Amino acid sequence: MSTLSSLSNQELCTLKDRLLNKYHDFQAQGLNLNMSRGKPSAEQLDLSIPILTCIDSRETCLAEDGTDCRNYGSLDGLPEMKRLFAEIMEVQPANIVIGGNSSLTMMYDTIARAMQFGILGNTPWGKLEKVKFLCPVPGYDRHFSITEAFGIEMIPVQMLDDGPDMAVVRKYVENDPTVKGIWCVPKYSNPEGKTYSDTVVDAFASLKPAAADFRIFWDNAYCLHHLNEKHDELKNILEACTAQGHADMVFIFASTSKITFPGAGVAAMAASESNIADIKKRIFFQTIGPDKLNQLRHVRFFKNRAGMETHLVKHAAIIGPKFALVDEILTAELAGLGIAKWTKPNGGYFISFDAMEGCATRIVELCKEAGLCTTPAGSTFPYHHDPCDCNIRIAPTMPPLDELRSAIPLFTLCVKLASVEKLLAHAGA
Amino acid sequence: MSTLSSLSNQELCTLKDRLLNKYHDFQAQGLNLNMSRGKPSAEQLDLSIPILTCIDSRETCLAEDGTDCRNYGSLDGLPEMKRLFAEIMEVQPANIVIGGNSSLTMMYDTIARAMQFGILGNTPWGKLEKVKFLCPVPGYDRHFSITEAFGIEMIPVQMLDDGPDMAVVRKYVENDPTVKGIWCVPKYSNPEGKTYSDTVVDAFASLKPAAADFRIFWDNAYCLHHLNEKHDELKNILEACTAQGHADMVFIFASTSKITFPGAGVAAMAASESNIADIKKRIFFQTIGPDKLNQLRHVRFFKNRAGMETHLVKHAAIIGPKFALVDEILTAELAGLGIAKWTKPNGGYFISFDAMEGCATRIVELCKEAGLCTTPAGSTFPYHHDPCDCNIRIAPTMPPLDELRSAIPLFTLCVKLASVEKLLAHAGA
Repeated sequence: MSTLSSLSNQELCTLKDRLLNKYHDFQAQGLNLNMSRGKPSAEQLDLSIPILTCIDSRETCLAEDGTDCRNYGSLDGLPEMKRLFAEIMEVQPANIVIGGNSSLTMMYDTIARAMQFGILGNTPWGKLEKVKFLCPVPGYDRHFSITEAFGIEMIPVQMLDDGPDMAVVRKYVENDPTVKGIWCVPKYSNPEGKTYSDTVVDAFASLKPAAADFRIFWDNAYCLHHLNEKHDELKNILEACTAQGHADMVFIFASTSKITFPGAGVAAMAASESNIADIKKRIFFQTIGPDKLNQLRHVRFFKNRAGMETHLVKHAAIIGPKFALVDEILTAELAGLGIAKWTKPNGGYFISFDAMEGCATRIVELCKEAGLCTTPAGSTFPYHHDPCDCNIRIAPTMPPLDELRSAIPLFTLCVKLASVEKLLAHAGA
Repeated sequence: MSTLSSLSNQELCTLKDRLLNKYHDFQAQGLNLNMSRGKPSAEQLDLSIPILTCIDSRETCLAEDGTDCRNYGSLDGLPEMKRLFAEIMEVQPANIVIGGNSSLTMMYDTIARAMQFGILGNTPWGKLEKVKFLCPVPGYDRHFSITEAFGIEMIPVQMLDDGPDMAVVRKYVENDPTVKGIWCVPKYSNPEGKTYSDTVVDAFASLKPAAADFRIFWDNAYCLHHLNEKHDELKNILEACTAQGHADMVFIFASTSKITFPGAGVAAMAASESNIADIKKRIFFQTIGPDKLNQLRHVRFFKNRAGMETHLVKHAAIIGPKFALVDEILTAELAGLGIAKWTKPNGGYFISFDAMEGCATRIVELCKEAGLCTTPAGSTFPYHHDPCDCNIRIAPTMPPLDELRSAIPLFTLCVKLASVEKLLAHAGA
């Protein structure tokens, strides 16, 4: 197939007419499709229904140490819940603080505490003239929203194939004491589905930050979320940092949001013991403790990491084919045209799609006007500003396969249409 | 019975010996009793066991608007949960934001937001030289801990019979723009069990604060928590403030912590619509939304306020007799001695006990050494400093009646012993 840019103006015009006809056919269908957020499908949620009733009596509400989980107490989580998250996050239970229903809230609260109280005795960030965070791009919009809300300046750092561009990261972190953090989704990254290589993890661990309170925000949201038998492996960041004498440099986050129920799962963070002590000293004022009954539900349902992995194989059986279908249609419709590339991850919740420069906003707009809601263009960049206007996050997990069979061809049609418009405008200029 | 202060030194010494003998008998029993926190008893918690299993299938996870509560969404709570809390808090659903498992966390977060972002466009408190809160005393230690954590200066204001001394409150609030808030537990107050009179509520509503962002933190934790048929009535503060043109002046908090399960209940706050809009704009960054499945459990279990009231009558049947027993023993052992007074509330979770000046710390110490853990002396005052060292909070709900039958006589013995010691020391001086 010839690339679109090799076509003559005349050929482009003819193609545009044909694409527009197809587009109007789509519009006439009155579609209402949504691929905007990384939500599990109803079928995935059904897998966890038994968790709802596994705690059902006075006796089943007792923790292993005899704690009545129906009453107050347990500031940082039940021992058995810490043990389960320790297995998942590959740390010791003493490195864990259990949170409420959201790791995002734990990240927000971590930054809120750093702003107000400072980290491990350092000056509160709120008292400094300037605080900066590094933001590997494309990245997760809700991370960027948090730092933006606190007035923290965000510096984009390009994602390479095996993680952020560590030369750039090192330059900022080691020379600028106002750089206090970096957002990372190190495994099956949001949106690209990339996993940081051992070299990248080691490069993180060996950073010598200019700021004593620089922290890596390691959002390991998809640590167990494989899509097929090819499992990416991620080197243990806490061990790597500890080996370099920088145990305090990382905060790790995870949750069961996409394992059981988003909004009714359990979140946790992991860090060095001195960080954990610092955090517990502060959260004492904010809470009597997170929901212990929901912790018990999770522990009883999964028992251990192996139980959770078995459960996630069932998830993969549902969403794996969705990712495969999207890739199949994208390939059939767009391969060889020279107007797009996209990722083919082994896990996570997203496919990252790069259109021709300057086309993403137009593609999203065309999709919307034909009844397909996608993640807004720019969402994967700080301040919603994608300097190339090319990245679009595709979230294939929520719609049923049938809907994807309508949605992705519409999407590819919009990609082609926007590309042709772009090439014609360029030729006309 | 003659007052202890009318006894001669000789009589006091004889009494002290007798009391010490009894005290040593108690010590010999090796008791391990706890009256330190306002926790429901296991029997109360049993009442809510059915709530654990009322959501058990894909269908029962659907909210009335069709929302699948197993998935992400609903930043400020389900419509039916807002309606239930609107009934309880006597406001409109539009005045409600549903939180997680703790109203204390909502209070902390409200102050954290005020510090960081300011309220309704006012200067963030964190940017001001000085921020002060008024603290009616005796009051709730966890309130005081929050303001202390944020470095907010706390000014004690004496509780009178029908609420805080409003002349003092008015003087501070109307003249000092650094006074930004006041902590109130307006119904069945912690620890005194007093309910603010209509006059006090009206005095609050008619305040003309020097600070535009002064807020009344109205922690209506015990709004439905009657102990018998005598129900105190509390005038509606939001209506009163609205009538005075000060709708924005109050933040109201409540939860089901002591109705269903502490730590696994649902919390809410209520405020004017402009406050609510301001709050929602900020919490968007902190959370995707609170646990909707737990909201559904509560709505399905209680249906409406009447359902909750019926449930709380069962609670009262369990804890009412405990309060009665405590009062009975206190009266039998201490009435007429001139060394103590205590409250006899119609609701709430506490009895407030005032010993002779300078005796509270010693009483708590004596109790502890004989195996009875009470709330630490000073806890009911900002900075844990009770200038009279006389107030002790008694929390009778958690221990079974049998334990109270051991604990309260021991407590009264310690009261008598500390008082005799005090009188002898005074006489000797």
